[in-house]
Amino acid sequence: MEASVKQLDVFFNPKSVAVVGATKKINKAGHVIFKNFVENKRRGVFKGELYPVNLHEDSILGFQCYPKLMDVPGKLELVVIVVPAEIVPEVMEDAAAKKVKAVVIISSGFGEIGNCELERKVVEIAKRAGIRVLGPNCLGVYDSKTGVDMLFLPETKVLTTGEEVVATPRPMRGNIAIVTQSGAFGVAALDYLAGRQIGVSKFVSFGNKSDVDEAEMLHYLYYDEETKVILLYVEGIKNGKAFIEAASKVTRRKPVIALKAGKTEAGARAAASHTGAMAGSDQIYNAAFTQTGILRVRDMEEFFDAAKAFVMQPPAAGKNVAIITDAGGPGILAADECETQGLIVKRFSEKTLQRFERLKKEGKLPKFATNMNPVDVTGSATSEMFELAADIVFQDQEIHGILLLGLHHTPALQVDYIDRVAKVASKYEKPIVACDIGETEMALHTRSRFEKLGIPAYSSPEDAARAMSALAKYGLYLKKKGYLKEYLQNFFREKRK
Amino acid sequence: MEASVKQLDVFFNPKSVAVVGATKKINKAGHVIFKNFVENKRRGVFKGELYPVNLHEDSILGFQCYPKLMDVPGKLELVVIVVPAEIVPEVMEDAAAKKVKAVVIISSGFGEIGNCELERKVVEIAKRAGIRVLGPNCLGVYDSKTGVDMLFLPETKVLTTGEEVVATPRPMRGNIAIVTQSGAFGVAALDYLAGRQIGVSKFVSFGNKSDVDEAEMLHYLYYDEETKVILLYVEGIKNGKAFIEAASKVTRRKPVIALKAGKTEAGARAAASHTGAMAGSDQIYNAAFTQTGILRVRDMEEFFDAAKAFVMQPPAAGKNVAIITDAGGPGILAADECETQGLIVKRFSEKTLQRFERLKKEGKLPKFATNMNPVDVTGSATSEMFELAADIVFQDQEIHGILLLGLHHTPALQVDYIDRVAKVASKYEKPIVACDIGETEMALHTRSRFEKLGIPAYSSPEDAARAMSALAKYGLYLKKKGYLKEYLQNFFREKRK
Repeated sequence: MEASVKQLDVFFNPKSVAVVGATKKINKAGHVIFKNFVENKRRGVFKGELYPVNLHEDSILGFQCYPKLMDVPGKLELVVIVVPAEIVPEVMEDAAAKKVKAVVIISSGFGEIGNCELERKVVEIAKRAGIRVLGPNCLGVYDSKTGVDMLFLPETKVLTTGEEVVATPRPMRGNIAIVTQSGAFGVAALDYLAGRQIGVSKFVSFGNKSDVDEAEMLHYLYYDEETKVILLYVEGIKNGKAFIEAASKVTRRKPVIALKAGKTEAGARAAASHTGAMAGSDQIYNAAFTQTGILRVRDMEEFFDAAKAFVMQPPAAGKNVAIITDAGGPGILAADECETQGLIVKRFSEKTLQRFERLKKEGKLPKFATNMNPVDVTGSATSEMFELAADIVFQDQEIHGILLLGLHHTPALQVDYIDRVAKVASKYEKPIVACDIGETEMALHTRSRFEKLGIPAYSSPEDAARAMSALAKYGLYLKKKGYLKEYLQNFFREKRK
Repeated sequence: MEASVKQLDVFFNPKSVAVVGATKKINKAGHVIFKNFVENKRRGVFKGELYPVNLHEDSILGFQCYPKLMDVPGKLELVVIVVPAEIVPEVMEDAAAKKVKAVVIISSGFGEIGNCELERKVVEIAKRAGIRVLGPNCLGVYDSKTGVDMLFLPETKVLTTGEEVVATPRPMRGNIAIVTQSGAFGVAALDYLAGRQIGVSKFVSFGNKSDVDEAEMLHYLYYDEETKVILLYVEGIKNGKAFIEAASKVTRRKPVIALKAGKTEAGARAAASHTGAMAGSDQIYNAAFTQTGILRVRDMEEFFDAAKAFVMQPPAAGKNVAIITDAGGPGILAADECETQGLIVKRFSEKTLQRFERLKKEGKLPKFATNMNPVDVTGSATSEMFELAADIVFQDQEIHGILLLGLHHTPALQVDYIDRVAKVASKYEKPIVACDIGETEMALHTRSRFEKLGIPAYSSPEDAARAMSALAKYGLYLKKKGYLKEYLQNFFREKRK
């Protein structure tokens, strides 16, 4: 493992952690963070040593409290700092003396409000002592495997009725890493992903990026076995060269999806005042993303939709897609969005057309189903029709990806069509995405059953088309660079596990 | 009332209805449609007379059955036809003899599969007898007020577990009319809107449009008191002149939102094979929509999001918007999308800036909150801060619309901020839209509470921005045409009811 990778690993997998500013006061960040660690330790998830540091307490949540970092017994790898900004330099000096490896400075009140001198001082101490710093002014780290959890936002809130409900959830364990410059956006992302049952490996919020930044984090995640897809929310990148180098490396093995905020004049102005990011010309970012194979998305929803696609499906080896539908209108909407995204809704090969004709003659497809692309099995659709049509289309060598719109409303369609289609799909190495529209129990069941079987399912035809477009863009990048074969080998090896 | 309006009213509000092809066979469309009417009659919603017509039955669901239309006693206004295509001309002759006013031909097997001669014959009989025709090959009508309900798709379906769940719901009563060329898309829309608690006035599916088409329907809806917003899904328009005339008239009073499918080459090809629509150049549609004030949306989600905005909020009288947020990152995303959509995230007036400064000095806003646009009340946000900031921004005469991103995760923010902001908003005549990100109970509660108070709430900053953009585009159209004042007067008069 390279030195930098080893260093950053301490943030996610520390053998020992001290929380400076841990407290008994329930509403304080120092309490919530320490409690997260305590609970994960008791559940057997967090396996490191744990120390509260506070001058004024004897013990917190049953853990003996230490007045200073120097008083903590034994070695100390990671320190989480949750004390007022002006005390942080002093804590850093203690950390240096204690030879800690890394600190996360949750506290705000530094560069982001003009206290640049204070931030410079902190960085200087860290540099001198070889301590890596995350923050300041950040939400820190959440790791679904190791139980490191620095999220200090209230897990529940109280409604006007007096009812207590979940407000900030933790998503289930999974393979998506969230790397975010905005803490608030990051937490919102966790809330979104938890609700959609999409699993997360790591969450890291940078805040002011006084030391560790996106470039180094991407490089670290290249080696992280838990992470298969990286979501990057970014307002501005300081060190362009390092970023391009790291991004070029990581995208060989893992898709990186970027939501770049501050692309318009008003957005850039807001970004400057938010994290002091010099947004720079949007064209430069576009060029950097394209060059390094980073997939830039248009908005928040596309960001998560693409991530889900990459967790479940391989990239497409080309731009040609087929659409199978039981609903004419939605099929057209999907075709429109595919072509708008640069995909090709290709006319089928003669061989494929003949296969469809044969099925019609045998009465296995409706006489008036179109065997053009989109394939419209019509409102008379049955599970068998979807199964047969999917198999034919998967076999067409000129087709690189399949969109399946199985609107559940048609009378004869039974739910077993989902399992049948998934079985067909499992015989091939092409990506497939699904769509069902609606919010009824039946629609929710359809989408969730698809996802259980590894096929990402979307609630609009256009969302499905955009997800397929992401799979194709990345596939074409990998192909151009000569990495596609290796990526697919890894993908299917992991899948078979 | 104009003659055409009176004629079309029979489809939605008939004094008497016969269902030709009504049957006891549970899975048949003829059963489902008749049963819908029976149930709505028993619930006291459908108030007209009801007659099943079937040669082979004595009675259906307790209603005496008639062998032929001619046997039905008394006058008959509307006939729903659910028999095989080849028998339809004969039924039409009976309808003509019975002097019915309108028929809905649910049956397929006409022009859409090449049986143009059969369709021509049906139209000829109708023309001769002065009967208005909806269809053939359509889903017909659903009216949430009068209980006319021709949707024949199974209301429930059975999961593999044996559990029976809702598959095709009926949305609650409301003010959105759905006018759709695709039946499947229409049903999916009902499913979506029912799930999102968005109410519908009327649903009408045209199928082959052998007689009644979009133009006439728009004209009818201009006069419909139940309808305040019109959703138009269209693949191709035949009579451009009539459409432009009707559209120009209806958009004076009601926003028309169009989802035009078949805009790309592949989409147009699919549309041609789906409803035989000659999609024509997409530029022509764009020009027609722009000229007539129809709002064209990019995709399905934007379609419904915009409809919700118009039901709840007035149009914006200009392009200048303000964003208030407690989450920097999402605020930037909203600003980016606003400007991408052509809105202006305007710098505030000197007066507004001074007001913000004063609040900071008084300690009522955080010292480090930005009073630029977006206004960032930061993670220290409280309900009072949102209330104060909203009031200042609403007062700024150069601001035409407000986006409020109240991410619920921040520790000090209490749910009462929603009611407080709504109270502020109610003092002004400018539109406001809200956003909270996430899927936790808290996020769901936040959005639903906003909507209960008449503020449309979205789950991503960009969705909120697009909804505001629709409000501004329509507002500017009305202003240009000189209709804005009257629209606003009507809107607020209705609201105060």
